[in-house]
Amino acid sequence: MSNNKEEYTLFYWPKIPGRGEFVRLCFELASVPFDQVNEVPQLVKLISNKSGLHIAAPHFAVPVLGIRSGDRMHYISQTPVILTFLAPRLGLLGDAEKLQGLERDVAVAQIHQLCATALDLNNETHDTHHPVSVSSYYEDQIQESKRRAADFKQNRLPKFLGLFQVALSKDGAGADKKSAAKRRLWGSKTTVADLTVFQVVDGLLFAFPKCMNKLRQRGEYKCVFDLHQDIKGELKSYLDSDRRKTYFQWCFQALSRTR
Amino acid sequence: MSNNKEEYTLFYWPKIPGRGEFVRLCFELASVPFDQVNEVPQLVKLISNKSGLHIAAPHFAVPVLGIRSGDRMHYISQTPVILTFLAPRLGLLGDAEKLQGLERDVAVAQIHQLCATALDLNNETHDTHHPVSVSSYYEDQIQESKRRAADFKQNRLPKFLGLFQVALSKDGAGADKKSAAKRRLWGSKTTVADLTVFQVVDGLLFAFPKCMNKLRQRGEYKCVFDLHQDIKGELKSYLDSDRRKTYFQWCFQALSRTR
Repeated sequence: MSNNKEEYTLFYWPKIPGRGEFVRLCFELASVPFDQVNEVPQLVKLISNKSGLHIAAPHFAVPVLGIRSGDRMHYISQTPVILTFLAPRLGLLGDAEKLQGLERDVAVAQIHQLCATALDLNNETHDTHHPVSVSSYYEDQIQESKRRAADFKQNRLPKFLGLFQVALSKDGAGADKKSAAKRRLWGSKTTVADLTVFQVVDGLLFAFPKCMNKLRQRGEYKCVFDLHQDIKGELKSYLDSDRRKTYFQWCFQALSRTR
Repeated sequence: MSNNKEEYTLFYWPKIPGRGEFVRLCFELASVPFDQVNEVPQLVKLISNKSGLHIAAPHFAVPVLGIRSGDRMHYISQTPVILTFLAPRLGLLGDAEKLQGLERDVAVAQIHQLCATALDLNNETHDTHHPVSVSSYYEDQIQESKRRAADFKQNRLPKFLGLFQVALSKDGAGADKKSAAKRRLWGSKTTVADLTVFQVVDGLLFAFPKCMNKLRQRGEYKCVFDLHQDIKGELKSYLDSDRRKTYFQWCFQALSRTR
């Protein structure tokens, strides 16, 4: 379903991986070129929804994906929606690609169910810094952040990582048992779900280094950490390039000492 | 794309509308019958992911949708994923139904972008009660809840309602200008996005009655409140029936006096 007539532009904030990274990883793994627009005034204009652009559905936030086909430009937003749109175009449905009808629809849903769960974990990670108000700074809610981060590590993180461990510990619906050595979240081939979980785990290793490294050393959630390493290998040329943006230090600096 | 060979079961908590309601509304508007399972032990078994059921992708939470086709039962979860799966089956894509190829894919993405934004608003509404810990009770975080609710009303709610107002104030990409009198979030026919925004606004009218009624009386976000009334009309026979569950009073009781 790859379509050579479509050209893609990712609109996202400059300098940070952020939620734009989930989209970038799809293009990078598929080796499909894409443009990036990260000039702040242009982004603000786009999400103000008063831009004079023909926007069929207004955008709450970036990332926004632009899709050019002929002389028309379409815009879509919401990270999970962008991933759902791109996955069949970029060959990121793994073993589900070969299915038809209901079997395919269910498989695609299950892959995006795993993506959605990973993005929920990403949101909860982010929210540890803004428990009271997403509109104000971390520094203004530092006490609440500490309580929320403690709860996150104790209750939420194990629940999420445990789910991905279960998904990786057994054969997915589409898994070829002979190739089970290369095990992915859904079946035996890398899908958008694996990329999404990779990125969330990678961010957690940065944001909660003490906690995550302790879990890794203990051998907990081994399949999840193994997946992280495997996908890191698949994305090596990108991750080693200057196209990969570094995590934004100040966001996590204050808390990471205790994490 | 309606498929008479498929039979649906919604697995969700008893007694509350909750996130299950977004799924129920789809079936109700489409007049497609569905089973419901709400026995807690069965639900807990399902989301424990150790159930012995052949679950291709583990579930973080209910709602879970079961899809029976022949002698096979498939399971999917994550509300936005369930809505994406069901919308084409239940005729809930409105004017996008008649489109093909990229045009259709973009339209479907934009409809689900609006759903995702409404579900984000729903999450933020819920989180006003659990700013510090989703694992503990409202009573243990009441001070933080008050701060978060104030921020929500001042900063977040206007941003979300403003976005839906914009979507409803102009012709959607698929809108037939002649029928613009019946304006919907995407085009001129009711889609899953309209159902989702209806339910979120309905929940807000319950959870923040003072704030919401003040906005309504002032004429702010008029298109959004009009949409709420229109969809209420379309769903009248369901909403008047005992199938519609009532909002769970204790969740919102303590705060609603000041809202």
